[in-house]
Formats: sequence, C-alpha cells, structure tokens
Amino acid sequence: RINSDRLWDSIMEMAKIGPGVAGGNNRQTLTDEDGEGRHLFQKWCKEAGLEIAVDQMGTMFARREGTDSDALPVYVGSHLDTQPTGGKFDGVLGVLGGLEIIRTLNELDIKTKHPIVVTNWTNEEGTRYAPAMLASGVFAGVHDKDWAYDRVDARGKRFGDELERIGWKGDEEVGARKMKAFFELHIEQGPILEDEMIDIGVVTHGQGLKWLQVTLTGKESHTGSTPMPKRRNAGLGMARVTELVHEIAMDYQPDAVGAIGHMEAYPNSRNIIAGRTVFTIDIRSPNKDVLDEMDARIRDGIATICEALDIKFEIEQVGHFDPVTFDEGCVKAIRDAAERLGYSHRNIVSGAGHDACWINRVAPTAMVMCPCVDGLSHNEAEEIFPEWAAAGCDVLFHAVVETAVI
Amino acid sequence: RINSDRLWDSIMEMAKIGPGVAGGNNRQTLTDEDGEGRHLFQKWCKEAGLEIAVDQMGTMFARREGTDSDALPVYVGSHLDTQPTGGKFDGVLGVLGGLEIIRTLNELDIKTKHPIVVTNWTNEEGTRYAPAMLASGVFAGVHDKDWAYDRVDARGKRFGDELERIGWKGDEEVGARKMKAFFELHIEQGPILEDEMIDIGVVTHGQGLKWLQVTLTGKESHTGSTPMPKRRNAGLGMARVTELVHEIAMDYQPDAVGAIGHMEAYPNSRNIIAGRTVFTIDIRSPNKDVLDEMDARIRDGIATICEALDIKFEIEQVGHFDPVTFDEGCVKAIRDAAERLGYSHRNIVSGAGHDACWINRVAPTAMVMCPCVDGLSHNEAEEIFPEWAAAGCDVLFHAVVETAVI
Ligand SMILES: NC(=O)NCCC(=O)O
Ligand SMILES: NC(=O)NCCC(=O)O
Repeated sequence: RINSDRLWDSIMEMAKIGPGVAGGNNRQTLTDEDGEGRHLFQKWCKEAGLEIAVDQMGTMFARREGTDSDALPVYVGSHLDTQPTGGKFDGVLGVLGGLEIIRTLNELDIKTKHPIVVTNWTNEEGTRYAPAMLASGVFAGVHDKDWAYDRVDARGKRFGDELERIGWKGDEEVGARKMKAFFELHIEQGPILEDEMIDIGVVTHGQGLKWLQVTLTGKESHTGSTPMPKRRNAGLGMARVTELVHEIAMDYQPDAVGAIGHMEAYPNSRNIIAGRTVFTIDIRSPNKDVLDEMDARIRDGIATICEALDIKFEIEQVGHFDPVTFDEGCVKAIRDAAERLGYSHRNIVSGAGHDACWINRVAPTAMVMCPCVDGLSHNEAEEIFPEWAAAGCDVLFHAVVETAVI
Repeated sequence: RINSDRLWDSIMEMAKIGPGVAGGNNRQTLTDEDGEGRHLFQKWCKEAGLEIAVDQMGTMFARREGTDSDALPVYVGSHLDTQPTGGKFDGVLGVLGGLEIIRTLNELDIKTKHPIVVTNWTNEEGTRYAPAMLASGVFAGVHDKDWAYDRVDARGKRFGDELERIGWKGDEEVGARKMKAFFELHIEQGPILEDEMIDIGVVTHGQGLKWLQVTLTGKESHTGSTPMPKRRNAGLGMARVTELVHEIAMDYQPDAVGAIGHMEAYPNSRNIIAGRTVFTIDIRSPNKDVLDEMDARIRDGIATICEALDIKFEIEQVGHFDPVTFDEGCVKAIRDAAERLGYSHRNIVSGAGHDACWINRVAPTAMVMCPCVDGLSHNEAEEIFPEWAAAGCDVLFHAVVETAVI
C-alpha cells in the first residue's frame, strides 16, 4: 500500500502555490504559479531519482527506469493546472498519486520490467485557453501543435508565447512516445460514489462534449431613450440562448447536461443596450447521437432567437470530443486491483473530460476515480478525505505495477 | 446667431481626447483623459475671459461677469465625460454650446445684466461610478458628498481618490451657488425629432429611472459532472431575470423601457456553473406609478425565479430619480426662442437622465434638444449634423441671453 500521509502532505504542499481566495487554488495554465508548481514537482521527481523530459507543449515526463529499458513504459498522471477558482485535488491527485507510486516502489525497492513515467499534461482545464486537454490532444494527434500555440487567452496572450515566457517549452517532439498503457487517477467531480458510499469508481466510459462559442451582434444604444421596438439587444439574446440550452439539456437528462458558464457583454455599461455578447455553450452526453441532436437543436434555436431580435450570430466550435470507451484490459486491471484490495467499487462514466480521454486514442488507457465531498468540483471548496485519496492511489498503484511487471 | 463652424471645430477638437476604437470616445469620468478634456475646456474658457472655479465634486464653473455682479447668474452646461464606447456629442455639445454662447457674446460685445456661468458637471454618465448625474445630484442636495466620494468603480477605486488623483478636486463647497436659471442643450438620443424632421425638442418632462443592482448567489460546480437537478446556476438566474425585465417593460411600453446592459458572471469559466452573477437592471418611465409598479413586479419575479433555482439574491438600488417636470418659464423661453428663430419644434420628454433633472430641484431649469442620426446614442457611431448642432445652440443662446438680460 502507498503512504497515505506522504501523499496528503505533498498535495497540501502543492496547494500553497497559487492559493485561491477561498481555500482552493488559482494556478491556471502557463501563469507564473503554474511554472512554480512545475518546479516543485520537478524537485520531488529528482529526489525520487526520476529523469525529467519536457515536450514542446510543456508536458512533463518523469521516468523511473525498468529492468528492461527497451520495454514500453507504463504512464501514469494527470495535470497540475487548476481552474481560476479551483480545488486542491482536481488533477493534482493524479500527478502526485503517480509520484507516490514511485516513492512507494523506491521504498520497497521493487523493480518493474517496464519503465514507469509520471506525467503532468499542460492545460487540462481549458479556462484560460480553450479547448481543454490541449496538450494531451496534441500528443494524441487530435490537434496540430502550431494551432495550439496560436490559441489566445481573454487578454490576447498566445499559448505559445506564454509557454516560452514561463520557461517550460521543451525540445521533445510531441506525441513521439509510445506507451504500454496510461492510467489516470482523478476525483469523481460528481456525487455518485459519495451518495452510494463506494470507495472506487472504475471508469468504463467518458461523456462526449461540445463547446460552442457564440458571438451575438446587435446594436449599442441608450437604455433610456431607445424605444423598445427599436432595440437590437445582444444581452437579451444571450439570456434567451442560456434558457434554450438549459431546456434542451433538461429534455435529455440524465443522459445529458448543458450550461453556459462563460458570458461577456460589451460594452457592459448600465445604460447601454449590449451591442455584442460572447459566451460559450457547454453540452455533454455519453451518447454521441444525443450530443449531435442537442447541437443541431441549439443551432436552430439560436437562429430563431436572433431573427426575432434582429441580431446576428456566429458560432465557433472551440472544443469537442466524442464519448470515450476505455480499454478493456486496463479497466479490468483497475477493477481487479480494487477487488484484491477489498475496496467497494462500481463502474462509472466520467462526466468531465480528462487527458485519459485523448490518450485512449493512442494507448490502452483507463481511469480510477475516488469520491469527492458533495460531488463538488470546479469550486475552491472542493474536498476529499485522506482515506479516499489513499484508496484511489492504492488501486492506481496495483494497476500500474501489475501492468509494469510483465 | 452663434458661429456654427467654431462650435463644430471645438467639438471635433475635444473628440481627439480619449478616442474610442470606432470613431467615438472613451473619456470616462475621472480618467486621465477626463482630466485632459478639462484642461482643454479650461484653456478655452480662459481665452474667452472667463473665471474658473471648481467645487469639491470637480464640477467646473466658468463665469462671464454681468453688469450687475450681484445679480444671480444664469447657468448653462452639461458634461464632458463619456461612456466607455460613447459618442462625440452626448454631453459635449451642451458644454461647448455654452462656451460658444460666451464667444458669440464677446464677439458681439453684448453685456448681460446677470453673469453667465458655463458648467461641466462631473460624472454624468454613471458607467464607471453609479449613479449617473452624481455631481449635479450632490449639488442639488440629493446625495451626500462623502457618500459620493465612497462610490467605487469595478476595479475598487474610490471616486474621491480618483478625483484627487486627476487633480480636479476643487475647494468650493458643493451646492453653495444660487442660480437664476439653468439651461442644458443635449442631443435627443432617441429617434423622434429625426423621424418627424423637427429641428428643436422643447423638453417639458424627463423620464424617471431606477437602477437595481442584483447579485445572485448559486454554487460553482462542474458543468460536466454536476447532474442537472443538483445545479444552483446563477447564470441561468441572470438569464431569466433579463427576460423578466424585458417582458415587464414590453407590458408598459411605449410608456416604459427596461433592460440589463451590465452583466458579470463569476468565475466566468467555460466549464464552471456560475456561482455568482452581478448585473444592473435599468427601468424607466415618465409615469411614477408605472415605474413603481415595474419595480414591484421585478422584485417579486426575482424572488420566484431564485426560489425555483435554489439560489439567493440581493437587490441594491444604485440609481433613482423620479420623473421630472421642467420649469414653465424656462420651457417657454426655449419655445419662444425656437419660434422667433424660425425653427420647427415640438414638446418632448427626455428618455435619458440629465444633470438638468437634478438642478431642476434647486433652480428654474429647462432643456433644448436637437436630433441625432437614427436616434443613436451610447454608441461610438453617434452622429449629428453641424446644422442640427447650430440650431440647438442658437435656441440655447437666445433663451440664455433673454433670461440674463433682465
Ligand atoms: N476534469 C476536468 O475538470 N477537466 C476539465 C475539462 C472539462 O470541462 O471536463
Ligand atoms: N444623457 C445620458 O445619456 N445620461 C446618462 C444617464 C442615463 O442613463 O440616462
């Protein structure tokens, strides 16, 4: 079994970097804080005898040699970047859980045939730069590297420039590595495991997602002196689309979800009818047909809403992945480990996207989930208990080592 | 008659300070650009032989002596601050129109019994600091000066501090001045005069207004993994209130208007259900009962919406003025001037708030309006023709001088 206290202490130590305003973290990708978090992780990896490589997307790979250095490595990891108002565990548990496996192997002086590589993928969260899971997407060949470099944040800063600025643009070609398998430990971010008091989620599938960034263009005018029928109100348009997305998601739930979390009005003045609004629709379903149907209904609905309000619209898809089915063998390794260790477990579908979803396209992949309090994530109050983290990491440990020994 | 070219040139010269991004202006109150605009105005006033005083709210008073220096002065003016995406004429026409009157009087060597004072009121627009018409409100005794100093902008900067920072906090006690009358020239900011091809709006009344700043508090959570029924979505709440305000305004129009131009979602991340939204409702009517009824219906509606979504709300009234009836004598002076000069005219109700609305409480007051293209204002594309400005300024000239001679 892994060392629960050591794992917990490392998580708490990492959480000191980029503290949030309410007990969580703001360590968004490619900020100075992200850079600092990477240095701390690198230091710990060196202390554990690992060899670090960094690819051109800034993804970090920390390798523990195997007895057969030509054998394909087993990869384990997640991401250290957070939401602007993120928790201490989303992503971090999976990276430091990987490190804890190494520390445990070192302590027990266990050698594996296959090398084990702990990985920190760049920009998983997708808040500062859409889409989410950007570096793992480039690694899996879904996105082009130069296209990724050209993503811009809300202040117009390019991904490629910011990666260089924080000093974490490596030399290694992205996606050149071959993997025997990839395992990711993550908190559930939903309420199922806690509600059913189950220790371990064996992730068999992942929901598909679409992010549609919508720009509505009306006409700025005075809120007091513009007659109601003369208004071309892009703010009202955004409100109607928000309601539309909610209604459509409600039609398909529990087989789908949908919301708008990002919304901007211009010029955002109390006495100006918004002339332009920009917002991102997030819709998800484990069923590809449902996702496509929602997408089509939303596009139709936006056209109808905009016609009624005499405003124009543009829709850009800024994120997309199809529903995922994880590798049977890897899933079984996780289920067997939970069973062997005596943890209660159930199959689960991931509601969130994860780096594992992309890596699944290029290597046998699976995920372990542990519960989180109240199913709450993407909130500074995100919380888990040390025992939950330890159970998840134990299962990860067994699945990884079992895959790496033979 | 005034010198139309000189008036126009001055307006264009002022528009060079704080240029916008689309041909208009961003010279928001108490910015460096506001300070620069004030210096230019001051320079012009000095060249015209006026004596400048500045009160503790930063309002500028430029005085042309009368033959009886004890006689109550006639005031004329408006504001030089603009919206973040404002036009070149909203406010500016009224201040530089006042200056043009002085220049014309100087040129014709006309002496008036009463002094004439050209005024630039601080923070009319209300975007950076709510409420609008802040300095004229303090002058009229509606707001307390220290309360005004404590207003903060979106970045937390205090009004009082910013006024000192730009160097325009004067010594003069606010509201100490007595006025024989106050006249304000302004563009209509609505479509009526242009649609009816009328030169001059004789403003008899002004709409009343309420600004309700609403904060909705739900719970930040993951857009992918939070089941629909578990969401406490403050973004959806904001959308529903936006629709509610629109529907209520439509019930009363053309006797009312209503919209939300200012809206913020926190943390504004694509994959976080908004845990908090902040927005300002703007409702107006020339009928006080209608305004009160709308206010009550909106408050009820917000309570119902929030209950259904399991979110909390707070409502703060950040702006308010009752409908205004302007002074009969001053209104007549304007109507008579238009008539005498041969301009077509009609009575009109101001859809926007103006400094004149507050000053009307402490002095006989009226307003002259000229048309603006497409009724468009609070938009960088705001436009008027030099002839329209000249007609308005001619009427202002005659009304002011007539009031100042006897
Ligand atoms: N796990 C996680 O929160 N990933 C961010 C991408 C998403 O929104 O699902
Ligand atoms: N005239 C004008 O636009 N004033 C700003 C205050 C208002 O919103 O009416």
